[in-house]
Amino acid sequence: MLRWLTAGESHGPQLTAILEGLPAGVEVQTSDIDAQLARRRLGHGRGARMAFEQDVVTLTGGVRHGVTQGGPIAVQVGNTEWPKWETVMAADPVDPELIANRARNAPLTRPRPGHADLAGMQKYGFDDARPVLERASARETAARVALGAVAEQFLHQVLGVRVVSHVVGIGAVTAPDGVLPGPDDNDALDADPVRCADPATSTRMQAEIDDAHDSGDTLGGVIEVVVHGLPPGLGSHVHWDRRLDSRLAGALMGVQSVKAVEVGDGLETARRRGSVAHDEIDVTGAGTVARRTDRAGGIEGGMTNGEVLRVRAAMKPISTVPRALATVDTATGEAAVAIHQRSDACAVPRGSVVMEAMVALVLADAVLEKFGGDSVAETRRNVTGYLDGLVWR
Amino acid sequence: MLRWLTAGESHGPQLTAILEGLPAGVEVQTSDIDAQLARRRLGHGRGARMAFEQDVVTLTGGVRHGVTQGGPIAVQVGNTEWPKWETVMAADPVDPELIANRARNAPLTRPRPGHADLAGMQKYGFDDARPVLERASARETAARVALGAVAEQFLHQVLGVRVVSHVVGIGAVTAPDGVLPGPDDNDALDADPVRCADPATSTRMQAEIDDAHDSGDTLGGVIEVVVHGLPPGLGSHVHWDRRLDSRLAGALMGVQSVKAVEVGDGLETARRRGSVAHDEIDVTGAGTVARRTDRAGGIEGGMTNGEVLRVRAAMKPISTVPRALATVDTATGEAAVAIHQRSDACAVPRGSVVMEAMVALVLADAVLEKFGGDSVAETRRNVTGYLDGLVWR
Amino acid sequence: MLRWLTAGESHGPQLTAILEGLPAGVEVQTSDIDAQLARRRLGHGRGARMAFEQDVVTLTGGVRHGVTQGGPIAVQVGNTEWPKWETVMAADPVDPELIANRARNAPLTRPRPGHADLAGMQKYGFDDARPVLERASARETAARVALGAVAEQFLHQVLGVRVVSHVVGIGAVTAPDGVLPGPDDNDALDADPVRCADPATSTRMQAEIDDAHDSGDTLGGVIEVVVHGLPPGLGSHVHWDRRLDSRLAGALMGVQSVKAVEVGDGLETARRRGSVAHDEIDVTGAGTVARRTDRAGGIEGGMTNGEVLRVRAAMKPISTVPRALATVDTATGEAAVAIHQRSDACAVPRGSVVMEAMVALVLADAVLEKFGGDSVAETRRNVTGYLDGLVWR
Amino acid sequence: MLRWLTAGESHGPQLTAILEGLPAGVEVQTSDIDAQLARRRLGHGRGARMAFEQDVVTLTGGVRHGVTQGGPIAVQVGNTEWPKWETVMAADPVDPELIANRARNAPLTRPRPGHADLAGMQKYGFDDARPVLERASARETAARVALGAVAEQFLHQVLGVRVVSHVVGIGAVTAPDGVLPGPDDNDALDADPVRCADPATSTRMQAEIDDAHDSGDTLGGVIEVVVHGLPPGLGSHVHWDRRLDSRLAGALMGVQSVKAVEVGDGLETARRRGSVAHDEIDVTGAGTVARRTDRAGGIEGGMTNGEVLRVRAAMKPISTVPRALATVDTATGEAAVAIHQRSDACAVPRGSVVMEAMVALVLADAVLEKFGGDSVAETRRNVTGYLDGLVWR
Repeated sequence: MLRWLTAGESHGPQLTAILEGLPAGVEVQTSDIDAQLARRRLGHGRGARMAFEQDVVTLTGGVRHGVTQGGPIAVQVGNTEWPKWETVMAADPVDPELIANRARNAPLTRPRPGHADLAGMQKYGFDDARPVLERASARETAARVALGAVAEQFLHQVLGVRVVSHVVGIGAVTAPDGVLPGPDDNDALDADPVRCADPATSTRMQAEIDDAHDSGDTLGGVIEVVVHGLPPGLGSHVHWDRRLDSRLAGALMGVQSVKAVEVGDGLETARRRGSVAHDEIDVTGAGTVARRTDRAGGIEGGMTNGEVLRVRAAMKPISTVPRALATVDTATGEAAVAIHQRSDACAVPRGSVVMEAMVALVLADAVLEKFGGDSVAETRRNVTGYLDGLVWR
Repeated sequence: MLRWLTAGESHGPQLTAILEGLPAGVEVQTSDIDAQLARRRLGHGRGARMAFEQDVVTLTGGVRHGVTQGGPIAVQVGNTEWPKWETVMAADPVDPELIANRARNAPLTRPRPGHADLAGMQKYGFDDARPVLERASARETAARVALGAVAEQFLHQVLGVRVVSHVVGIGAVTAPDGVLPGPDDNDALDADPVRCADPATSTRMQAEIDDAHDSGDTLGGVIEVVVHGLPPGLGSHVHWDRRLDSRLAGALMGVQSVKAVEVGDGLETARRRGSVAHDEIDVTGAGTVARRTDRAGGIEGGMTNGEVLRVRAAMKPISTVPRALATVDTATGEAAVAIHQRSDACAVPRGSVVMEAMVALVLADAVLEKFGGDSVAETRRNVTGYLDGLVWR
Repeated sequence: MLRWLTAGESHGPQLTAILEGLPAGVEVQTSDIDAQLARRRLGHGRGARMAFEQDVVTLTGGVRHGVTQGGPIAVQVGNTEWPKWETVMAADPVDPELIANRARNAPLTRPRPGHADLAGMQKYGFDDARPVLERASARETAARVALGAVAEQFLHQVLGVRVVSHVVGIGAVTAPDGVLPGPDDNDALDADPVRCADPATSTRMQAEIDDAHDSGDTLGGVIEVVVHGLPPGLGSHVHWDRRLDSRLAGALMGVQSVKAVEVGDGLETARRRGSVAHDEIDVTGAGTVARRTDRAGGIEGGMTNGEVLRVRAAMKPISTVPRALATVDTATGEAAVAIHQRSDACAVPRGSVVMEAMVALVLADAVLEKFGGDSVAETRRNVTGYLDGLVWR
Repeated sequence: MLRWLTAGESHGPQLTAILEGLPAGVEVQTSDIDAQLARRRLGHGRGARMAFEQDVVTLTGGVRHGVTQGGPIAVQVGNTEWPKWETVMAADPVDPELIANRARNAPLTRPRPGHADLAGMQKYGFDDARPVLERASARETAARVALGAVAEQFLHQVLGVRVVSHVVGIGAVTAPDGVLPGPDDNDALDADPVRCADPATSTRMQAEIDDAHDSGDTLGGVIEVVVHGLPPGLGSHVHWDRRLDSRLAGALMGVQSVKAVEVGDGLETARRRGSVAHDEIDVTGAGTVARRTDRAGGIEGGMTNGEVLRVRAAMKPISTVPRALATVDTATGEAAVAIHQRSDACAVPRGSVVMEAMVALVLADAVLEKFGGDSVAETRRNVTGYLDGLVWR
């Protein structure tokens, strides 16, 4: 069982994350996490904050000399902007005079449609949206990416798994069907400003983002995560919450701004007839089979079937819209326009890195559930024993 | 915290389900469960088995004289076909001669594409698909519907909540946008052969099913669950797995054959620009607000926002296709056509009852998480205190 | 991860239990469960109910022809006294006239000290203790014993583990130190009326029970569970709730009437000095070590160390004391004497079977956590690989 | 649901802890945590390390201006000795020459009896005990105390609860029965060198520690945690793992070196007869009752009963005994004496602060389970409603 928690506010001193349950012997370094966080800062359509934001990563527990030690892994991601916020966001009480007239400290009373603001104020009894937006902010996903980087190392070292992703839609611009990134394609995709595998579509997506930006508007889109190298049998059909598709859906829908999740061909599958909706099985040799297609996205009956895993997440456009939206001023009771916090036009390209992280964390958990093991060597030995014992693979 | 487990095989003596964590004082009877199970047997396109199948419900724990007692609730759903299977599916060893030449006992060695069959055989080390399909079968959803019926009573008695659902797509036939069933519309929807709220679309859906059936084919579709009466603040933005959308997505994707889940306008939202993708807020009176639209499906920041909750699940077409699909015979190693287990053309209409159940179970858990309480009176009092204390609602 | 739930009331139609997460391939039959339940009915000092009570076991899910199938296992334990209670304890509402003057239906308003009665009435808002005592009753432990029997089969088939137990104290009578039952001693212990390994002490314990019974009084005592055959490394030091001692303590303290739990020499260890409190390690051969003593009870740092596991649970005397205890009549507000429900003098001997079950369930979970596996063959292969790879064992 | 994880090694840069699920509105500051950590460093018998160790606490998430914000709370406890260890314990790989001849970096190959060392090396596949002891060390309890301080503030602000503790045994020296610290007695107890409530016993305990220290030996002992102000009805009888005694036992046995846990009179209760083992109930006024005694320690049927909660934990003597214990040198395969890491004679007095923290965390979770609430105001309102509604209290 893999457990993990993240903590920290958008303008706090740091994000903190703990990952508990990973075996010993995973080779991982600060630079592995840095690399993933750097990917998260990329992308056409990012706003000013992403440009100057630096993620200062420190591994503070669970890793020694580049190798996990079996105990919980702690990572912190420092916020280089903290000096500007250290009074306003101080954990301990501060002299009221210090913050009395600070704009940054003023209560935010015009909750933004599409955000957690108003519901969060109601739920937690706040008359200020700041406590809500500080935690609901997508800044928190940096902590997930940090832990996902560790999970990916585990998956790769134990199984040779590769987690890649690409953007298949930005607003109304959609990539052509049938483009599937290979296991080593992330670098090339990172080089594309929108992480789209199809160059022509990429150009159109960039233009779409520019147009939205110029119109004071924002865009969402769709990301596909593709995982190569998974064995059959992760997840299970025996109980709903052991199904790998259920767990992946919960993880992806648990990312800020995601409004839909698909496995394999997803909604398209629901429109097909049964005779052309499934993946027929061919005998490819002595004891080996392969599916002719991968419409199921590598999951049948809630389990991996040995084919490439494909899951999609659809992100809504950024809710903080430069063209202000109507809301209430909770302090005055009057109609108002929503507060405006930042100005990215499109967060989808870098969102793909977050989706990879969530998928990696779910898969690492599923691998440990099936194979157990307290060290990379032990888990790997158990995997090998299983694969060698398969009559059909 | 609400916990629940289901057990039992498709052709076993019964399904068994336990729901742990529900307060005392919920009024619920066998007939409430019967009524939901009866709805699950309805629908155009159901096969022979559904027609003669009877669900024999017995409440064996947790309820006395029609009221829950605070302890775990146990329900069993008997299988009227059990006498035909009691030797072949016996829990204890049987005289080998008794089953030696029984067709029902023959190993199933031609795994069906789209089902758990092959991956399950690999995972669990079986040379027969029967143990897999017996548990992976959608028959198991009867147990979920039974528990969902209890959860719905709780939601209704504590909050006045109503969970309804309708079919918005069957294969390529799609219902028009903007049709939203009201809190009391389930009866009328049940009277429609495909549970579609739009009569013209219903006719086309039925024709589509008939056509698929005549072609020896099957169909999937899309279901929307609509929940009226939820307060703002269920779920949370503070951690990914507290987000209500994450939990709903995991629950719905955890139903057999679901390949996509949407919240609110889902994928459509990802195609819109930010200025027209969110739900602007109007002041409607002293201390009251309302959203102009419900594109978010009643969830912002992972929390209910007080609007109508809308979630969708897309089911693939039934994987057991009358036109047989290519597979391997694992006993001979030769190419083969898949076993054929049953013959429904479309399971979507009755699938909607399963989706309601899953949504009800997730919501009941979220209500208990926010409001606590060990009796209906206590939970209701806590709800009232919260609602009365809201500055804006 | 192993999950399990029990449901059912003391005088309801049956107890129901589901165990989820056990691999396929475990050989288990109704008779295995019957045998454990029969042991639970043994013992000097049991009252009238235990004598006529029959446990009618039915395996209703997860097992076929004597072998687990990977899915949840459902067991029900029928109550042969149900016909006497079927109106009073009916799940559905009954004609009020049928129960109006039935003594069995009269509200119980004189809560018993030592029982859940009064706190349960307060918590759940009841004006009758029946709903509380029906579920709090030790009758529920039959469901745990049923599941524990399955867990024990798994442990034995995968690791050769043997779970035994003996009574080391009844009231003030204590068995001599240093008596340790061997792996095959349960049969002999079952033959002793108080399950004590020391014949002379057994005689004194029986006399003590007889004396208590004659005085209208009750007795508690102490049980030790002893587990042979565990490998080193179950549980972990890395997080408090992964520690095996923590999980065992929670499980044993979670049995009705337990007020203390000890691991190894327990409290006695706290009185010793460090130089004589631990288990020194001897090199016994090439790559093999052994501890000179087993004061730690086979657990160091929250992990098994390969020595014999020993844990103890202390049960308070039965709270329903024939000599009535002072209480309140909640209906009248007057002082009263507590209701009297049954008359066993001592439940400790059969309690030992319950403790074995709880230990087996915790250990099965810990084995799956470390070794994974979806079939007995797979888990066993992983165990063998681990043991073969140990440099020191 | 309250979740929490700790991370960090004994000689790492810091301990990290996250507490997830606490309502907003809890007033807590760094100084509250400092105060508890300072108490953890007190006590006769502490070794050199405790004397110079400084706990540098930083709240890095979840708290703003002294008030919790509803999100996860992150605390780090810095290690002032880190500069001495930063190469040897570095997370990232270091130049091998830098550590080649550092004594601190030498593999520890003589595992200590009584510690996690050997079992941990076996489980995780290490040939060095350092990774095990770094995490198994009691240093980690500082992280628990930090989170416990937050939980205590919550309990106090919502319910007026006070968690106190006292030492009732050091080695063979035992405090007299019947001494019960009051809600405000922690300060006075902290002033006693062994935190014993009885001055004469304290003197004898100190002498015992001095004697053990002079003999190159170590001592354990017994701690009682006493909680004032709990309402009836926390925990539950309905399922074993909802029982508060089960959860407390798991939490206390999950503290390093604990070998026994008792609730109320614990083992003594098991020796009594039923007529004098329970707490008879008196009517003390209109709608009020009180128990004559508190032998049950405030828990009946797995629930608080409104009386003072009392739980005990027995700690074994420190396993690193100055008089070295026999072991194996895993590098040479020869018999050896165990490594010696530190030299406290007795950790029991400061252990009591850890036990308080664990109890507070369990109780905070139980309070949220029963009462829900996302802010102190909401939880408090729910508590008040419950207490006001009790017919008997």
